[in-house]
Amino acid sequence: MTGQGVSRGPRLAIDIGRLREEMELLGEIGREPGVPGINRPGFSNADMEARRFMAERMHQAGLAVSMDAVGNLSGLWETGDGPRIMAGSHVDTVPMGGLFDGAFGVCAALECVRTLRDAGVRPAHPIEVIATAEEEGRFGGMLGAEALAGRVDPAWLEAAVDEKGLKLTDAMRSQGLKPELYATAQRDTASVKAFLEVHVEQGPVLDRAQIPIGIVDVISGVFNWTIRLTGETNHSGTTPMELRRDAFAGLAAFAADIPRIIAAVGGDQTRVTIGAVELKPGFPHSIPGEAVFSIVGRDTKLTTMRRLASECRRRVGDVAAGAGLDVAISEHSWIEPRACDQGIVALLSAQAEKLGLRSLVMPSGAGHDAQLMADLTAAGLIFVPSIGGISHAPDENTDWSDVEAGANLLLHALAELSGYALT
Amino acid sequence: MTGQGVSRGPRLAIDIGRLREEMELLGEIGREPGVPGINRPGFSNADMEARRFMAERMHQAGLAVSMDAVGNLSGLWETGDGPRIMAGSHVDTVPMGGLFDGAFGVCAALECVRTLRDAGVRPAHPIEVIATAEEEGRFGGMLGAEALAGRVDPAWLEAAVDEKGLKLTDAMRSQGLKPELYATAQRDTASVKAFLEVHVEQGPVLDRAQIPIGIVDVISGVFNWTIRLTGETNHSGTTPMELRRDAFAGLAAFAADIPRIIAAVGGDQTRVTIGAVELKPGFPHSIPGEAVFSIVGRDTKLTTMRRLASECRRRVGDVAAGAGLDVAISEHSWIEPRACDQGIVALLSAQAEKLGLRSLVMPSGAGHDAQLMADLTAAGLIFVPSIGGISHAPDENTDWSDVEAGANLLLHALAELSGYALT
Repeated sequence: MTGQGVSRGPRLAIDIGRLREEMELLGEIGREPGVPGINRPGFSNADMEARRFMAERMHQAGLAVSMDAVGNLSGLWETGDGPRIMAGSHVDTVPMGGLFDGAFGVCAALECVRTLRDAGVRPAHPIEVIATAEEEGRFGGMLGAEALAGRVDPAWLEAAVDEKGLKLTDAMRSQGLKPELYATAQRDTASVKAFLEVHVEQGPVLDRAQIPIGIVDVISGVFNWTIRLTGETNHSGTTPMELRRDAFAGLAAFAADIPRIIAAVGGDQTRVTIGAVELKPGFPHSIPGEAVFSIVGRDTKLTTMRRLASECRRRVGDVAAGAGLDVAISEHSWIEPRACDQGIVALLSAQAEKLGLRSLVMPSGAGHDAQLMADLTAAGLIFVPSIGGISHAPDENTDWSDVEAGANLLLHALAELSGYALT
Repeated sequence: MTGQGVSRGPRLAIDIGRLREEMELLGEIGREPGVPGINRPGFSNADMEARRFMAERMHQAGLAVSMDAVGNLSGLWETGDGPRIMAGSHVDTVPMGGLFDGAFGVCAALECVRTLRDAGVRPAHPIEVIATAEEEGRFGGMLGAEALAGRVDPAWLEAAVDEKGLKLTDAMRSQGLKPELYATAQRDTASVKAFLEVHVEQGPVLDRAQIPIGIVDVISGVFNWTIRLTGETNHSGTTPMELRRDAFAGLAAFAADIPRIIAAVGGDQTRVTIGAVELKPGFPHSIPGEAVFSIVGRDTKLTTMRRLASECRRRVGDVAAGAGLDVAISEHSWIEPRACDQGIVALLSAQAEKLGLRSLVMPSGAGHDAQLMADLTAAGLIFVPSIGGISHAPDENTDWSDVEAGANLLLHALAELSGYALT
């Protein structure tokens, strides 16, 4: 095979200046006056602008660019033969997000391709850079990767709405995408050899341990619910405490119980978060007649995740019954935990060692594209440290030296997987 | 004195049809498409329109109409001499409020004057119908009655803002009022003999007991705070539970503790309400870095109210310290409990008995104009039942027969106070 050579020159490495410049240009898309951070929610205008920007960069790198029906952007290096190696991440962000989350994985994959091409490397397998759509769950799922892996639930696709009630299908159509053709985005298992993603950890583990590389062996599952508690609005002064049907008091009793729920049925990888709360009428002198809140639960073990969900349902039901409240739970998504490919974990560990990079095999508490891609192919996920563990916030940050280390590990793993052993 | 006659005809009574029609006309002001109930927040356009409507009705009833610098609307029946008897309530409402709260007391006072005039009664004292400004505390106080009673804190007046950050002084000036002249609204104690207010109970006590009349002997004090808890926004999946600085978790722990706070330092008239909550960034997948919430505490005893406030401060401080949160408490208002005039309580009880109306001497859990007016003069407050105890809500309701009973008690008490004994 043409690719079975061994480079004799200095160790091949990505160009961190070029990668940084590209990430910073991409990070200018989704800035809004008066709103901190980067705002590219899935299928927003800024998200689509980011895709057009990356399409142009892929084209400049000599890749064959295409976008599927759900918005996944693909840049294919048509080289070698057989199943392709895919690498990438997403370009959508949470509102007020940071520079690295998702964007790093897409730009790093493209930088690796540029580096290999510039060095004259001819991989034995095609390499595809991918920027997935709607990874951040604005509409409750992880649509791009779900579509690639053939895991879209059509009933969910039709019903999904964002926090403001905008329908997913309307948001997609307004951007020229075709939700009804979602099945055409599915990849054939035989056509893909592996998927690699590099991503910021978004947690404090690597930063605290001062280890530059995390190699993920399992990715937490996640459930995402909206719970509505309904009581009775009333005057805050005249209604005796024992006669109230205070929806917020019910929410507070449940939320305050979360540490006990986790102690009872969870483990050290369990995470439960109430991130959004809306009260009606929402006035200081009125007892809240309605409380609508989000709850996101995660665990790396499916059995624990099921017990956690069950216990949350039971406890919110108990609290509601005790406080005279009606309760309605709607589930926006249920994504099961996924193991990464153990062969790729071993390959990444070996490549990191070869490059002199300390690494830690670790779980991922956040969901990632790799989680869905693991249903399609052998998937691997590389982490680099997040300074202070901060992410999903404007001051998300990673040392550029760690960005460089993560991208170089991706480079060498891609080369190895595509049948080309770099020194 | 001219008024010292005794009517020989059938017992004088208000015209409930006329009163109801006026209240329903007033209740058309502040309706908004798509928003339930009546929306006349203090110093809104709808609030000012309601004042203009009532000014016209006062004028039609032959009263001398004026408005002071802070928006209190006055209709004076220039009859008799010496200090005047004041009667009234407010016309502003909470957002999505009901037909009766405040409006009943203003329209009932005007109806009493019409009834007395039509019957040829000549009171020994002038009678003044008053519609106070900003009773509902959009800006945290009870500005109209505070100005009449000379209880405005000028520093508060300058600093006060509503929930959206609109300055009170800006809201007033936009309606042509003159906050800098607030002191001119103060009444001389010697110029007022008494103040009477009739109001819906806004609680369940009279309705449950099926008693048509409540005679208030003490009005709860109230404190109104905004508390800001500041932690750290972070990714909901990657940050271990024990490393979080989750502002909402802190709020929930405090709010869930409120029943224990009341059990420890409160009494059966203690009320604590968290009615408004805002989280930042407020997204399901982000740990809230900031929680801003209202807390309104009330009690009929000043010592209890002080202990309650102190204990709330202590507990929120403890919770914040335990969860790594910063805490900032801003006090919008501190209104002390007030006793009604015991002479007027006795007069109202006697008049109710004369009219064959069952009555109950009771505390008021809600704040009322009478509370501030008690600083100026002998104040009395009559309650009528609220069906189901519901108020501050669109389905606030009172039987028209109870409205009639309450207005007739006001009529006979006004006549008695003004030196004219009706049969």
